Amino acid sequence: MNIYDVSQHAGVSIATVSRVLNGNPNVSEKTRENVLKVMDELGYTPNVFARGLGLDTMHTVGIMCSDSSDPYLAGAIYYLERSLRSHGYDSILCCTGYDLEVKQKYFSLLRSKRVDAVILAGSKFVEMRPRDNSYLLEAAADLPIMLVNGWLEGDNIYSTVCDDRAAVKQAVSLLIGSGHKKVLYLYSSYSHSGLNKLDGYKDALTAAGLPVQPELIHQCAKDVEASRDLLLSLADEGLTFDAVMTSDDSLAVGAVKYAHARGISIPGDLSIVGYNNSLLALCTDPEITSVDSKVEALCTTTVNTLMGVFSGVNVPSRTTIASDLIKRSTTNF
Amino acid sequence: MNIYDVSQHAGVSIATVSRVLNGNPNVSEKTRENVLKVMDELGYTPNVFARGLGLDTMHTVGIMCSDSSDPYLAGAIYYLERSLRSHGYDSILCCTGYDLEVKQKYFSLLRSKRVDAVILAGSKFVEMRPRDNSYLLEAAADLPIMLVNGWLEGDNIYSTVCDDRAAVKQAVSLLIGSGHKKVLYLYSSYSHSGLNKLDGYKDALTAAGLPVQPELIHQCAKDVEASRDLLLSLADEGLTFDAVMTSDDSLAVGAVKYAHARGISIPGDLSIVGYNNSLLALCTDPEITSVDSKVEALCTTTVNTLMGVFSGVNVPSRTTIASDLIKRSTTNF
Repeated sequence: MNIYDVSQHAGVSIATVSRVLNGNPNVSEKTRENVLKVMDELGYTPNVFARGLGLDTMHTVGIMCSDSSDPYLAGAIYYLERSLRSHGYDSILCCTGYDLEVKQKYFSLLRSKRVDAVILAGSKFVEMRPRDNSYLLEAAADLPIMLVNGWLEGDNIYSTVCDDRAAVKQAVSLLIGSGHKKVLYLYSSYSHSGLNKLDGYKDALTAAGLPVQPELIHQCAKDVEASRDLLLSLADEGLTFDAVMTSDDSLAVGAVKYAHARGISIPGDLSIVGYNNSLLALCTDPEITSVDSKVEALCTTTVNTLMGVFSGVNVPSRTTIASDLIKRSTTNF
Repeated sequence: MNIYDVSQHAGVSIATVSRVLNGNPNVSEKTRENVLKVMDELGYTPNVFARGLGLDTMHTVGIMCSDSSDPYLAGAIYYLERSLRSHGYDSILCCTGYDLEVKQKYFSLLRSKRVDAVILAGSKFVEMRPRDNSYLLEAAADLPIMLVNGWLEGDNIYSTVCDDRAAVKQAVSLLIGSGHKKVLYLYSSYSHSGLNKLDGYKDALTAAGLPVQPELIHQCAKDVEASRDLLLSLADEGLTFDAVMTSDDSLAVGAVKYAHARGISIPGDLSIVGYNNSLLALCTDPEITSVDSKVEALCTTTVNTLMGVFSGVNVPSRTTIASDLIKRSTTNF
């Protein structure tokens, strides 16, 4: 018996049930009476949303991340913890790795601790096969699930995403506009965010009337050396390219190393764009132009949305944050 | 009334009291009787160490770190969480920043959550002035305090440290042995670990019969650009040096950038050694020789020690982990 059952039986949204529970005046008297009647009939005890009122709550939120030693996710954890703390919530951290079974196990564990919500940090928590996400959809009936730069449709699931597609489109359009004809695209992940970035690359080519050439699109482990070696072998096979757009700074660092290894001048003969604007982009010579994917804004917005859910306010199920292109010395725009 | 009072009144160590509470046979009958008598007289309820027996425990450990977006600390949190989880403990994370008052506030907050122990990750939690550490010493009467690469003497306080002093001495000795006469030392922190590293630098000079020259020792913010700019201005002031030893990879990256900016060949005219063997050391050309400070071993050892404390086993109050020098292309040894 949970809030989802109440919303189903009453024929209203979970947000409406939540507003009734929280005494939010933004509900008609008729709806309120209907919801309360259904609760009574079902014998529902409003323990989940009562949490938002400070009743029956540990004031604790679970944060799951695949790997907190990844620089992007390390930043995310820092900002999420700080923002939750500012609202009086503790963070229980779970570093899950990438295996689905382990993620599910840790997710169950967090639920058994009666956390008030679970935040999934990073886009690696939404699986390609819908049935692999069913444990999240089912759990959302009992507690809000917040996705940081991931997207999953469902009641009581809230996403805050960066406009990755627009960000990559903008960067690639600038590369094309500054005279590049063959922009190689390197990416590491097929996640929501990963696929969006790839679409942004294709958007830019299409907008410029250029063909999408599969031989210019390559998947690569998120690793400096793997990226350098891939580019070296592609060049050895005779592939030519005058710019490299990447889905992560580590891949862009690999591209800088490839250029150094082959004596190719940057940005004269090769332009390079990174993603995430991490510390890594500042370590190379020249420093790397990179998309700032606004991890701090993503995290504080996620927590603000969650606080809205707790207090029964109407919040959007999806919020998009605009990225920023930080121009440095690996590009001539 | 706590275990500290019992140990004081009985004239035995906290570890002994703990062993008595846990029924550990490694205590003489006379001592056991004495401890139990004191407990009785004082009206002591053994709630703290009973936690180790699975009684009266939330199976939750607080982790405090100054800044989880620092690559070294991000790694530490990842390994601590993973290791605690493998023992069935949750981690409540607190990112405190560097301000003492904020650290104290968060520490109290963790205690109020009745965590079973607090782990302080990184060497920024032990203050220079003894009175600023009294809140830790007092709290240790109630729950174990674990320091990861920090050192504070006190009952029920356990440190796992890297042999930073030996590590820097070894690296600087290798620099001197390979013909360097003027080794500049760049460091960012006056923490326990920071001072040890500086001592290691001095040890190496002394061992080689070289004078310690204050003009070759410089403090610098832990930041790539700050390090590069400091070296540029020192060179402009006429300082000469043929090697740079650093206390952190970010400072070493700055040294590589300084050399590139001035057209100085690495390692021909300038050798550079980093510290922590982070991702940053792999981003530059040439890649940076760096001390692997064994953060994973530090963290798993910290958690293993804590599990020993919980079960009343005799554990050392200080464990030292040996570092490793990873030789890459910024040195000719």
